[in-house]
Amino acid sequence: MKSYEEMSKEELYEIKEGLEKEYAKYKGMGLSLNMARGKPSAAQLDLSMPMLDVLGSDSDMVASDGADCRNYGGLDGIPEAKQLIADMVGSKPENVIVYGNASLNIMYDAVSRSFTHGVMGNTPWCKLDKVKFLCPVPGYDRHFAITEFFGVEMVPVPMTENGPDMDMVESLVNSDETVKGIWCVPKYSNPQGIVYSDETVRRFAALKPAAADFRIYWDNAYAVHHLYDEDQAEILDIISECEKAGNPDMVYEFCSTSKISFSGAGIAGLVTSQANIKDILKQMTVQTIGHDKVNQLRHVRFFKDKAGIMAHMKKHADIMRPKFEMVENTLEQELGGLGIGSWLCPKGGYFISFEAMEGCAKNIVAKAKEAGVTMTPAGAPFPYGNDPKDSVIRIAPSLPEADELEMATKIFVVCVKLASIEKIVDNK
Amino acid sequence: MKSYEEMSKEELYEIKEGLEKEYAKYKGMGLSLNMARGKPSAAQLDLSMPMLDVLGSDSDMVASDGADCRNYGGLDGIPEAKQLIADMVGSKPENVIVYGNASLNIMYDAVSRSFTHGVMGNTPWCKLDKVKFLCPVPGYDRHFAITEFFGVEMVPVPMTENGPDMDMVESLVNSDETVKGIWCVPKYSNPQGIVYSDETVRRFAALKPAAADFRIYWDNAYAVHHLYDEDQAEILDIISECEKAGNPDMVYEFCSTSKISFSGAGIAGLVTSQANIKDILKQMTVQTIGHDKVNQLRHVRFFKDKAGIMAHMKKHADIMRPKFEMVENTLEQELGGLGIGSWLCPKGGYFISFEAMEGCAKNIVAKAKEAGVTMTPAGAPFPYGNDPKDSVIRIAPSLPEADELEMATKIFVVCVKLASIEKIVDNK
Repeated sequence: MKSYEEMSKEELYEIKEGLEKEYAKYKGMGLSLNMARGKPSAAQLDLSMPMLDVLGSDSDMVASDGADCRNYGGLDGIPEAKQLIADMVGSKPENVIVYGNASLNIMYDAVSRSFTHGVMGNTPWCKLDKVKFLCPVPGYDRHFAITEFFGVEMVPVPMTENGPDMDMVESLVNSDETVKGIWCVPKYSNPQGIVYSDETVRRFAALKPAAADFRIYWDNAYAVHHLYDEDQAEILDIISECEKAGNPDMVYEFCSTSKISFSGAGIAGLVTSQANIKDILKQMTVQTIGHDKVNQLRHVRFFKDKAGIMAHMKKHADIMRPKFEMVENTLEQELGGLGIGSWLCPKGGYFISFEAMEGCAKNIVAKAKEAGVTMTPAGAPFPYGNDPKDSVIRIAPSLPEADELEMATKIFVVCVKLASIEKIVDNK
Repeated sequence: MKSYEEMSKEELYEIKEGLEKEYAKYKGMGLSLNMARGKPSAAQLDLSMPMLDVLGSDSDMVASDGADCRNYGGLDGIPEAKQLIADMVGSKPENVIVYGNASLNIMYDAVSRSFTHGVMGNTPWCKLDKVKFLCPVPGYDRHFAITEFFGVEMVPVPMTENGPDMDMVESLVNSDETVKGIWCVPKYSNPQGIVYSDETVRRFAALKPAAADFRIYWDNAYAVHHLYDEDQAEILDIISECEKAGNPDMVYEFCSTSKISFSGAGIAGLVTSQANIKDILKQMTVQTIGHDKVNQLRHVRFFKDKAGIMAHMKKHADIMRPKFEMVENTLEQELGGLGIGSWLCPKGGYFISFEAMEGCAKNIVAKAKEAGVTMTPAGAPFPYGNDPKDSVIRIAPSLPEADELEMATKIFVVCVKLASIEKIVDNK
């Protein structure tokens, strides 16, 4: 098979003609499809509907520590919810604070608190001239939105197949005291689905930061979000690795049940050292009287334990896997060998990252939009929305139903082909 | 009846001897009673248990705007929850953002956001040398804790029977641009149970603040928390009063269902102008993907409307009223005419504020503690915990069961008498 680059202008024009007809047909269909956000589908949300039955008017509402879950109090969460969160990410309950329905809010709070009050007695960041965060790219747009909102200077660090480029991370973190954090999605990274290797985790744990208040923002969003039962990625527990390396306080780990139970009504957790917890509780005790313990209890009574969560996640995987495979198969069938794009086939998480020819991503996303398919904006996986190569597009296969996803993917590959031909012909 | 001041030392010593015997008896009982916090009792929480039945595995989870309440999204809340919150405080749904389980967190966020990002384009407070808040006293300790945490200079303003001393408020707000806010509990104030008069509300609305980013922090915590069916206080709607006075953006109003449904698992709301909402959503869109809409739906399906809330609040009142009356009757019987304390009999809210003789509050609270009765710390209703007269004690009658409350109140009045005699004898 010839790649597009190897073809003559004439060959490309002929292909283009056919593609344009197909594209026009799709446009005429007045579609409205969405592959933009990592939202679970209705079928996935249905899996957790029985959770709404576990607490009723005749339920015992008392937590294992004797707390009435309906009343005020319990700043750091009920013990059994701490245990569940800890088990989910492979940590210990004494390292957990249970929050409300969103881990994003915990991350925002962590950055905000660092700005207003500083980290463990260090200067509040609002008093500093410059604060930098390292941003492995491509990465998660909502992470970057938080640091951008606070005026943090974001420094892109390339991803490798084993995680962020650790030579670069070490060099920057260990030498520059304005580097206060790094955003990480260590398992099934957003958007590539990359799993940090043991060596990567150990190198993180062994950092010697120039800044005493440097923290790794470890967003373990997809800790149990496997697609394949027989091929489940495990990563080292960053908390204990940091302890071993003499950096016990260097990590804030975040997780939630948003993509396990209900996206809008789950429970979220911060996992970190007890010294960090003590520091953070000073803020929390002013900020709130406690998060929703009834929902914590509901989650614990429904899932019971890690095994319960894993059994539930198998059901999610059974819905998600065919969608991922459909997208991957279509990409392979339609684009394989054409030399106009590459992608990884992740074993978990919520995204497929597509790398188009340089300078084509915005054009592809615009073309898809015109044909009724909403993609994540090109550039979104980069700080300030700036993809220097204009090539990365995040595909989110979870929300659409199978037939919609199939249609959206077909349209997407047509847009990729069209944009690629336009670029190649321009350069010939 | 002779007041204690009018008695001779000998008379007082004789009374004291009897009191000390009584006090010793109580101490010997090894009691553990709590009148410290405004927590609802188990009987009150039981009232909302049927709320746990309204959503189940077979429920329709779609909000009136078509949103699936289980999924992400809906930053400002589902329409029917906005309506419920608006009705509760007498405002309009377009003025409402629905948050998570705690209005305290909304207040914290408002102050924190003002520090990091400023109010509507004004200089972030973290860049200012000085930020002041006015604090009507006695007031709510958790309000003062927020502003203290951020290093805000708190300026006490005395309460009158119609609300804060408005001459002082006007003079300070209208002249000093470092005054950025004032903490208010306008209905059944914490701890006195005072209701702001119409004139007070109108004078608030007519303020001409020196600071463009001055906001009234209007914590309408007890909007529907009446004790007497036939004597329900109403206050003017501050939002529309401010509009009329040409100050549409001057108020953040806060409320929640914490003392309506479940204290730890209610829904909370911010009520404010649409311009403020627009400003705040810029932050919220970075901070979260949305609050718990399932719980919003649960509340709306359970209460249905304002009438549903009012019917529910009558049941709360039936539990709370006898407790308030018992405390008030005991105070009157035991302390009436002795000239050693005064108190108001509120028509709603959660507290009775007791004003002891100057210099006696700490001693009374310490004596109560020694006899097994935990009161709110003396000084708590004042900024920095500093009651200049050492006289105000907040009584929270809600949590204990009737017999416990009776015992606790009996012990309390003995402690008041003892501390007062000690003081009077010292001065004679």
